[in-house]
Amino acid sequence: MIPGRRRILGVAGTLLGAGVAGALAGRLPSTAAATAPVSAAPLPWPYPRLDPDVVAARAYWDYFDGHCMYGVFAGIVGELAEKCGGPFRTFPLELMKYGAGGVAGWGTLCGTLNGAAAAIHLVSADPEPVIDEVFGWYSSETLPDFVPEESPKPLPRSVARSPLCHVSVAEWCKVSGLDAYSVERNERCARLAAATARHTVESLNLQQAGALPLTHPVPEEVQLCRSCHERGGQMANARGRMHCRACHPGIGADHLDASAKGK
Amino acid sequence: MIPGRRRILGVAGTLLGAGVAGALAGRLPSTAAATAPVSAAPLPWPYPRLDPDVVAARAYWDYFDGHCMYGVFAGIVGELAEKCGGPFRTFPLELMKYGAGGVAGWGTLCGTLNGAAAAIHLVSADPEPVIDEVFGWYSSETLPDFVPEESPKPLPRSVARSPLCHVSVAEWCKVSGLDAYSVERNERCARLAAATARHTVESLNLQQAGALPLTHPVPEEVQLCRSCHERGGQMANARGRMHCRACHPGIGADHLDASAKGK
Repeated sequence: MIPGRRRILGVAGTLLGAGVAGALAGRLPSTAAATAPVSAAPLPWPYPRLDPDVVAARAYWDYFDGHCMYGVFAGIVGELAEKCGGPFRTFPLELMKYGAGGVAGWGTLCGTLNGAAAAIHLVSADPEPVIDEVFGWYSSETLPDFVPEESPKPLPRSVARSPLCHVSVAEWCKVSGLDAYSVERNERCARLAAATARHTVESLNLQQAGALPLTHPVPEEVQLCRSCHERGGQMANARGRMHCRACHPGIGADHLDASAKGK
Repeated sequence: MIPGRRRILGVAGTLLGAGVAGALAGRLPSTAAATAPVSAAPLPWPYPRLDPDVVAARAYWDYFDGHCMYGVFAGIVGELAEKCGGPFRTFPLELMKYGAGGVAGWGTLCGTLNGAAAAIHLVSADPEPVIDEVFGWYSSETLPDFVPEESPKPLPRSVARSPLCHVSVAEWCKVSGLDAYSVERNERCARLAAATARHTVESLNLQQAGALPLTHPVPEEVQLCRSCHERGGQMANARGRMHCRACHPGIGADHLDASAKGK
């Protein structure tokens, strides 16, 4: 294991020329283009505080161009490209279409959160607290709380209980009595993209002002599970901050009693 | 809902100038930079077939620079930047560090798959079958099946049963008897990044040769669940292709009998 090897080679490349760095790495460049260094602007990129409502409306419409992940990411980064230009203008926004339906319909991570996390990482010097806030908010609030001016028809709202697309959609189907492939579910996800983009921008703005509050921390119930199953616990076999009971509904007091007794 | 609105505005922007397009959209540019069009190269970007073993070794080492999502994405796209130059050189690879530990430690989508899906979407004209193959492979094979030349020590392998970091790590802890925060688990995830990058490149190469096989389709057990719960089913409340029993272990024959009788 050689952490930071590429960074060391980066310095070597600058000093000695990329061809020599390639030889040091045991790889010879296969074409002339191989000697050109990667020249992406280092992160974080500039973040002038954005208007959460402007970005929300933008994300809502972007959803219909490229679904959930694209909606949130293009809503935020498209606005930054217009405001700041620079490296934002050469970023291929359409890449983020891959996250649709929990990545190509697999139902894993909700695309609105995948897009939010990517956008946060692009512009924040300390992305983790902002991601924690947005993921915690998404898992525990009654959503979507965004209503587009152009189609103000009321729509059922639900608590996702999870950052996962599959769970989030199933909970909404339970509350609404509607189909996971209905027009209403599609509209719900567009509004969710808008709501998530808005909360992401609100959180980025607060962080930049030095005032990001931890309004959606890991719930006490989850902290109790983590006290045994996370780093340093007596059975540290779990990674994550998701709500445990969304996938482990059967675990009750008997499990906790047995665990406390070391069984 | 105005699907394709941005594309229409894109055309309008080219014809009339971006300032007019902004006014059409009801948004006035706030700075001079706002009138500059977004100029990212359209997807897919070029894909000359890569050597799966070269990319795997690269992803293994990249893991130690930026964890799982970065490992796979930088392994593939870093190699493309060296081989092709062009737009790959201005892509901010370090963005993909956000996917570490299922996105900032949340345990959602395994970062190796998040990075693979993004890389596939960047270079494939038809990304979905490649993503399906890589996610299906990851969920059902005994992994990691990559051994680095530099540290060939054997390491326990397991079947993830899911594309989710939380489930994948827990299954590995069960098989190995080791801790989710152990040195061995970290090494396991580095090898998993290498294995996933290798299978992704193998699949992209096969697709480009017109010979991508469906070697890891949705299992029959999951197809049975989907026949009721997915699009067009009698209770279409689920989106996704994940293995159902990883989170719904208690569902047995009685559920299927009751469902068949319409209860």
